[in-house]
Amino acid sequence: MAAERRKIPVVILGATGVVGQRFLRRLACHPIFEVAYLAASDRSAGKKYRDACTWHLSGEPYAGCGNMVVRACDPSEAPAPVAFSALDADAALRIEADYARSGAFVFSNASAYRMDPNVPLLIPELNSAHLGILERQRAERGWKGAIVTNPNCTTVVLASALAPLDRAFGIEAVMMTSMQAISGAGYPGVSALDIMGNVIPLIRNEEPKVESEANKILGTLQGGGLSARQAPAPFIVSATCTRVPVIEGHTIAVSVRLKGNPSVQAVEKAFESFVSDTYGLGLHSAPSKFIVVADEPDRPQPKKDVEVDGGMRITVGRVRLCPILGIKFIALGHNTERGAAGASVLNAELAYAKEVLKWASS
Amino acid sequence: MAAERRKIPVVILGATGVVGQRFLRRLACHPIFEVAYLAASDRSAGKKYRDACTWHLSGEPYAGCGNMVVRACDPSEAPAPVAFSALDADAALRIEADYARSGAFVFSNASAYRMDPNVPLLIPELNSAHLGILERQRAERGWKGAIVTNPNCTTVVLASALAPLDRAFGIEAVMMTSMQAISGAGYPGVSALDIMGNVIPLIRNEEPKVESEANKILGTLQGGGLSARQAPAPFIVSATCTRVPVIEGHTIAVSVRLKGNPSVQAVEKAFESFVSDTYGLGLHSAPSKFIVVADEPDRPQPKKDVEVDGGMRITVGRVRLCPILGIKFIALGHNTERGAAGASVLNAELAYAKEVLKWASS
Amino acid sequence: MAAERRKIPVVILGATGVVGQRFLRRLACHPIFEVAYLAASDRSAGKKYRDACTWHLSGEPYAGCGNMVVRACDPSEAPAPVAFSALDADAALRIEADYARSGAFVFSNASAYRMDPNVPLLIPELNSAHLGILERQRAERGWKGAIVTNPNCTTVVLASALAPLDRAFGIEAVMMTSMQAISGAGYPGVSALDIMGNVIPLIRNEEPKVESEANKILGTLQGGGLSARQAPAPFIVSATCTRVPVIEGHTIAVSVRLKGNPSVQAVEKAFESFVSDTYGLGLHSAPSKFIVVADEPDRPQPKKDVEVDGGMRITVGRVRLCPILGIKFIALGHNTERGAAGASVLNAELAYAKEVLKWASS
Amino acid sequence: MAAERRKIPVVILGATGVVGQRFLRRLACHPIFEVAYLAASDRSAGKKYRDACTWHLSGEPYAGCGNMVVRACDPSEAPAPVAFSALDADAALRIEADYARSGAFVFSNASAYRMDPNVPLLIPELNSAHLGILERQRAERGWKGAIVTNPNCTTVVLASALAPLDRAFGIEAVMMTSMQAISGAGYPGVSALDIMGNVIPLIRNEEPKVESEANKILGTLQGGGLSARQAPAPFIVSATCTRVPVIEGHTIAVSVRLKGNPSVQAVEKAFESFVSDTYGLGLHSAPSKFIVVADEPDRPQPKKDVEVDGGMRITVGRVRLCPILGIKFIALGHNTERGAAGASVLNAELAYAKEVLKWASS
Repeated sequence: MAAERRKIPVVILGATGVVGQRFLRRLACHPIFEVAYLAASDRSAGKKYRDACTWHLSGEPYAGCGNMVVRACDPSEAPAPVAFSALDADAALRIEADYARSGAFVFSNASAYRMDPNVPLLIPELNSAHLGILERQRAERGWKGAIVTNPNCTTVVLASALAPLDRAFGIEAVMMTSMQAISGAGYPGVSALDIMGNVIPLIRNEEPKVESEANKILGTLQGGGLSARQAPAPFIVSATCTRVPVIEGHTIAVSVRLKGNPSVQAVEKAFESFVSDTYGLGLHSAPSKFIVVADEPDRPQPKKDVEVDGGMRITVGRVRLCPILGIKFIALGHNTERGAAGASVLNAELAYAKEVLKWASS
Repeated sequence: MAAERRKIPVVILGATGVVGQRFLRRLACHPIFEVAYLAASDRSAGKKYRDACTWHLSGEPYAGCGNMVVRACDPSEAPAPVAFSALDADAALRIEADYARSGAFVFSNASAYRMDPNVPLLIPELNSAHLGILERQRAERGWKGAIVTNPNCTTVVLASALAPLDRAFGIEAVMMTSMQAISGAGYPGVSALDIMGNVIPLIRNEEPKVESEANKILGTLQGGGLSARQAPAPFIVSATCTRVPVIEGHTIAVSVRLKGNPSVQAVEKAFESFVSDTYGLGLHSAPSKFIVVADEPDRPQPKKDVEVDGGMRITVGRVRLCPILGIKFIALGHNTERGAAGASVLNAELAYAKEVLKWASS
Repeated sequence: MAAERRKIPVVILGATGVVGQRFLRRLACHPIFEVAYLAASDRSAGKKYRDACTWHLSGEPYAGCGNMVVRACDPSEAPAPVAFSALDADAALRIEADYARSGAFVFSNASAYRMDPNVPLLIPELNSAHLGILERQRAERGWKGAIVTNPNCTTVVLASALAPLDRAFGIEAVMMTSMQAISGAGYPGVSALDIMGNVIPLIRNEEPKVESEANKILGTLQGGGLSARQAPAPFIVSATCTRVPVIEGHTIAVSVRLKGNPSVQAVEKAFESFVSDTYGLGLHSAPSKFIVVADEPDRPQPKKDVEVDGGMRITVGRVRLCPILGIKFIALGHNTERGAAGASVLNAELAYAKEVLKWASS
Repeated sequence: MAAERRKIPVVILGATGVVGQRFLRRLACHPIFEVAYLAASDRSAGKKYRDACTWHLSGEPYAGCGNMVVRACDPSEAPAPVAFSALDADAALRIEADYARSGAFVFSNASAYRMDPNVPLLIPELNSAHLGILERQRAERGWKGAIVTNPNCTTVVLASALAPLDRAFGIEAVMMTSMQAISGAGYPGVSALDIMGNVIPLIRNEEPKVESEANKILGTLQGGGLSARQAPAPFIVSATCTRVPVIEGHTIAVSVRLKGNPSVQAVEKAFESFVSDTYGLGLHSAPSKFIVVADEPDRPQPKKDVEVDGGMRITVGRVRLCPILGIKFIALGHNTERGAAGASVLNAELAYAKEVLKWASS
């Protein structure tokens, strides 16, 4: 008679914010992980979760955890073998290292370690091999645990849409203008007085991330073991990031110069025939299809396409010729799921499936 | 003792729509023109203006003309020496020609004649010389009157912002993504169910206009008299046009390749030091300043910048380097004033100031 | 070996509109019903469903039925033992009678027959007994089938919230101001130019419905068989109906005069302890809880509460004293589910559970 | 030859907020007052105005005062014979008293002193006589200056609309539901995540203000001099206050019980024939008409009616019978002009015109 396998206890770091709440909702009924601790800033620690935050999501308030007491973001206060981090970059720098040092596997949505040469910047469907850098990360940092990051919420849409084109043709240059949702700014985030009926053509510190992260993601892992090395892809990215009055879903307009000047049909075929690295792994949070080409000429649209497949799908559309770079198209992804909470959870599921993350409940 | 000069009577064609209403509001107290007739489709003709349309603008409903009886769009029903046209392209093709043939000077916001080789596509501040094509237009068409057009509401923002750069450096290639207001689609236009909290990444027939009109506007008038000829500027434009939940104001993100690779400072100086063709003419509807560089790093924004100067100003901002084309920036203009009603009225004021449009009240 | 029970074939009348699409999505995977025909106006009949309408809902476009050919709304073209009607009132008057005459059980969201003395105006949780009028309906109309209606989308929120108070105390007078979602106006419905950033303080023909329907719903069925009679409840309703920029969910502010002047606590208890008529019936579309009192002082809110339980829950909150009528509170319901498609489907499930609707697959 | 009269120097207290900015824009080119100091919290004092705040209004940023240095809210730091206060209630309690004690005439939008028995709660058009309480205020407080307040932004709409009915018939009971704009919450105020596409059915501390202030405003000044006394009007008000996604303009739905049960026509006539107390005074900020009855059945609407007359007009519409209280109607006013900055400035203009506020430039 087989005992049911115990789930892996996890801590959510930064549990009170917009992304933290999505972590909680995803993990509240997850087949592998179970929430052991909700952790947040000192201001919230010691309070009941329901008193420490305003719940933003529809459905059951506080995902049923309203009475859990929030802990400090400290491995001695809120210890767990796996941590999901929705921390701000500044806090993440120290706290995520503390957790990794203490032996935890940290799956982070923060930007603090994304561009660190020994930290993988992971999208499971397209660069799962980057997990191979972890052995070197541990050795050089002296950590028993590890840190795995997911990209910025805009980059994830861009890099996901570029991956099929990079595999099929090779990318030389990318011009991107984003129309980003307000949830990306957290809570309270953007004032309604600023954004209602408006476009704000600046998102501080966003363009440099988009202009560098995609290269790392689509780069290659060279060598192995302690000499493994992440080499960035060499294409150029030029980004303009704007905020629009949309709740969830970043829409991007992309022009791209591809090797060999492929036709619109060839590009659409590359999108449609892309085979994810995760194919066959049965990851719980993976979408039924990673890249979907919209049938309708006026899609993708945040309102209609962003929530499909738990927000984990990337939808592209309007593939057409660009008289300057060759090909242009529109892409859309869910910024706080595919671009934040869902991304980290999927990273953890990949690490578990690949047995990089191991756990014996004893 | 000099008699007061009588104003020029005008007819507004398509007076019941969003742009027609703005024509009326602008012309209801204009120093040169006075509204003699409101004309619209057969469905509206014969009705009082207040019964023929839903008034969309704030302030005095129907601009005080609620009791005027709407006429048919026909020079025999609604004759005037000057016509302002807010007609749809299909209707404009026939009706504007009828008016021009009958001797009227037609200032048109419709797309029907914009790309006609003998019709000027005018932005008074930057290509006033294009009025020189009218002599040939009349000769070839056999018209006593004439047709002068203004650009598409997106193009006007793009071409205005490009003009200082073209004069200062010369333009080679332009990549543009627009975030367009819903008023551009007329009334009832866009359904609230479609656009609230959403981005629609397609505006039918818009991108081809933007990709061709700017070249004509920034082109040159060659020769003169009956052999005058409009030669388009040779740069390439690639456009992506999207609709966002904004009432008034088209925002565009532009990347541009300029000759000689100028610095950000040189580009900002070119914007700031641009001298309009209309300088010193004292045109009633001209803005106090045509191109303004925003001080704040997160501007221009529709909500804050679009209504300044009666909506006739173009605001640019965020001038910075583009790693692909060289320079990128944001520009904003009022789509139903600078890009429609105000544009046509300003064209008429220019024609009058230049004595191309003459009128003896006697 | 038992054969699986075949599902009951249904036709959706008015399948292309906002409510029709919700009918389809609900019925596309229903345990009792299966969609046999999609029917709509002559303009749509003969087209593929995907060509006959713009799909408004998120998730799988056309609920997988994009290739079904739309039929005319006629029992000979689109025959089925059960019809769900999303027709406009005018069309419903004739077409629903045609279906009922031909033997179909019509579950209608249209207003045409709501106030007919022999037609039940049903909310299963609170006046299931009104199905008892059907015998008389059939006899007087000479129909083999029947018509069952659900209330107006605003009334359903009001009547549901009033039911516990009427049972517990008795209602004397009701003052209601609604803030209604734009989806209630259908598609294209409300122009974005009209409603974005605005309140429209008039919804044509809405207030008379709200001021009469609740009385019928909370009234009693007197007598039985051919002498059954629906007697309206005697309280007075005063309604103000407004439109606000919300996609789904009608919020109402209610003041009510109750017999015996109960305390806030007594009223909250009445809400919480209300036992639905459907308790124990296991109806597929019934919410897990019909009336929920919100915990938070600033709830219910459309954005956070309206989608819970498939949109079939009524949420109330802010119960407090009214210095004029005695008690005031806020209530919220989903206007196109609880107030339209979901309501009709739940009515059909009730009729089936009560064996008023019978069907032998033979 | 008469020298031009010097303007009265004023200080704006709380100059950096949403209301403070409107004060500045109104006073930047005022015929009687001129801005001498901008004062704000210690956090802002010492900074340039442009660095101390985010400018929210359209038109010229910082109303041309971007380089003024912000002072502390202290009569010794920022002295002036007249102060306009946009302070929060807590700060206002102390600071406004400091200014009044030091001899300044304080025109306050804060709630701190509104219900003080010796402070007038003024709407110039309808209770100008309440200025008569000031002599007693000074005597009892020992102030050389004085404090005059204007109502809460919702109350001003209600009290203004009730005044004609109270004069014509007498009011017995008032039921009101408000749909309030987000600007009323200041800046950053309401998070876009909270209000976009939503209704928030609670505005903290708002309903008690509305339920008491209107009685004071429509009350009478009894006696005179040191025995003057403000007696509140005796009717009952029941308020429900909600927030909707509107930038400017509070819409209220009102039901009212009037003495003698007047007809709809009689009520409309009372609105239209109301003669303001300010008639003939030529106050600079007064609207051309105080109470306007909208012609259209679906008006007033914030988007179309709120900016007319500088936002100082109250628009009513949809006057009709209420089956419970007798009469119901809709009213609208500009919450940050008529309900805040414009209200205080108009109060000051009244005090100056009535020579309650005197100033000799010497």
